[in-house]
Amino acid sequence: MISSKITGTGTFIPSLIKTNSDFLKEEFLNSDGSDFSYSNDVVIEKFKAITGIEERRYAIKEYTTSDLAFFASKKAIEDASINPEDLDYIIVAHNFGDVKQGAIQGDTLPSLASRVKYLLKIENPNCVAYDILFGCPGWVEGVIQAQAFIKVGMAKKCLVIGAETLSRVVDKHDRDAMIYSDGAGACIVEKTDEQDSGILGHASQTFAKDEAYFLHFGKSFNTNLDKDTRYIKMFGRKIYEFALTNVPLAMKSALEKSNVAIDEVKKVFIHQANEKMDEAIIKRFYRLYKKPIPKGVMPMSIHKLGNSSVATVPTLLDLVLKGKIKNQEVNKGDVIILASVGAGMNINAVVYKY
Amino acid sequence: MISSKITGTGTFIPSLIKTNSDFLKEEFLNSDGSDFSYSNDVVIEKFKAITGIEERRYAIKEYTTSDLAFFASKKAIEDASINPEDLDYIIVAHNFGDVKQGAIQGDTLPSLASRVKYLLKIENPNCVAYDILFGCPGWVEGVIQAQAFIKVGMAKKCLVIGAETLSRVVDKHDRDAMIYSDGAGACIVEKTDEQDSGILGHASQTFAKDEAYFLHFGKSFNTNLDKDTRYIKMFGRKIYEFALTNVPLAMKSALEKSNVAIDEVKKVFIHQANEKMDEAIIKRFYRLYKKPIPKGVMPMSIHKLGNSSVATVPTLLDLVLKGKIKNQEVNKGDVIILASVGAGMNINAVVYKY
Repeated sequence: MISSKITGTGTFIPSLIKTNSDFLKEEFLNSDGSDFSYSNDVVIEKFKAITGIEERRYAIKEYTTSDLAFFASKKAIEDASINPEDLDYIIVAHNFGDVKQGAIQGDTLPSLASRVKYLLKIENPNCVAYDILFGCPGWVEGVIQAQAFIKVGMAKKCLVIGAETLSRVVDKHDRDAMIYSDGAGACIVEKTDEQDSGILGHASQTFAKDEAYFLHFGKSFNTNLDKDTRYIKMFGRKIYEFALTNVPLAMKSALEKSNVAIDEVKKVFIHQANEKMDEAIIKRFYRLYKKPIPKGVMPMSIHKLGNSSVATVPTLLDLVLKGKIKNQEVNKGDVIILASVGAGMNINAVVYKY
Repeated sequence: MISSKITGTGTFIPSLIKTNSDFLKEEFLNSDGSDFSYSNDVVIEKFKAITGIEERRYAIKEYTTSDLAFFASKKAIEDASINPEDLDYIIVAHNFGDVKQGAIQGDTLPSLASRVKYLLKIENPNCVAYDILFGCPGWVEGVIQAQAFIKVGMAKKCLVIGAETLSRVVDKHDRDAMIYSDGAGACIVEKTDEQDSGILGHASQTFAKDEAYFLHFGKSFNTNLDKDTRYIKMFGRKIYEFALTNVPLAMKSALEKSNVAIDEVKKVFIHQANEKMDEAIIKRFYRLYKKPIPKGVMPMSIHKLGNSSVATVPTLLDLVLKGKIKNQEVNKGDVIILASVGAGMNINAVVYKY
């Protein structure tokens, strides 16, 4: 039985720290363009109480998403101790392409995967580089695709990256702008003959009937701005309810396919979208099994790093594996779940045994 | 041995016909912004002699790429006589997202695959919808990915679409603008237990060392226009040489992996980028085997449809299968090759037996 194993991880955390107080002077508006009836410090306090976010990271203007992807990739390649020329696939998950600071056009020609391959100076033409767009769950989905290529004999080593510069697609008149962050995370997925370890099972879903546009590209809340310029927009309340209902079920489905008992799960690495939402998801997940939530089962990075879309899960995984999150570790034999939810609306979960 | 079979195809050919003479009044410039020393009718004559293009199609302003993708999908689903709710995957290949006419921003939130799923009114959440960015070879690569998911047991039925509205990302001061076209093609790939038919083998490659930016997003040749607004740009001569060297080798590699003799190949469906280039590729391909080029082996649609990127191969396949190209047909037992080359620079080839 051929399986797939993560043999290295890497992350790039942009250097610019944007604190909540940096938003004190923004002109936040309601979706109809009207003013808030309360001041920004109240808005920010509420925001922090719900999302848990105190700070987020922005990339310096010289870098675009593919640069961030490259930086994280280099670390993952080093961590796995592989020769980049041996890679069969480079899969880059993102949603907006390379957006230069101050510009509104995303650039996806060539694909970001080609750019990363170029920056890594890989000559081997049989290393296939492509981009996947799958909302925030894009990186987890890339891992699922990599393991399919490995299982079927199309690949032995894959580089899977999630990278995004959300700071460049936010509407600064929308308080949701405070959620979004820039970042990149990467991993090397390799073929393994080890039994009972690596990727054990997964679940993937797309809800596109009523949910397709819960996250969408829309115009600024400032009705004086250009109507043709669009920004990331979300119906937060709807997403919250949707995620609460469906993410625990997808995680359960992936666990069942993996033949793993709930008590074996040591950590759940969940997309860092919103602290309250993540806590509610994990609560519902354990409730499905009528079990209490194990202490420390859900490492979090949102407080200092915000929501960097496709980058949150690989970044969080890397930070825990490298011992950079207090009181969090993963040990040989531990079963973990990687889970995500986002635009599409897409949900996925991977059950993995170290 | 599980294999994959194309059980239905569909295409959407946009209604607006843009003839070469429609470009007579354009102000074409050299890449440095200087005027041409000869008139547009000479430019157009030369253009036609090399590319073979007489006309191309543009989508009406009410439609975006995902609409085109939806129209082609509906036909492919009908052709395959499947229930859309039974689809396991919707894979949309494109490169620029939904670009509204007159706007410069591409919209990829949600993914185009989610939009197609929404338009198809599919409720089944286990139908996973994602986008792949892989330059012009994106549709062929989507077919390759679909067969991997089928082989590994992750899918039984996949919808693979290539759709693009290149008319909205062209620089009208660049004569290369005349190459590009809008369109969509789709197919249903299904699991089959039939021996010796369906997808027999494939080759995929990414050349991203010197070649990564042969096709790229660049500024207008009109130096007075906004430098931050970018358009599809190519180094045509370099692409021509690159394709001539590498596409025949990739086709040969796919054929070898398929254990199929060259004499069995009945048709080659090659990306419609440039007639002279395609003719040179097929010549080199047969020269590798020291064989003459079989008459009618390479159906063409470029004369009337131009280069619609990811849409050319599935559109051409659909037209031939439906008997819409004179003196061209595919019969049971025929081996065909689907091959493409484009931004990345990516090349791929699929050997398929009907």
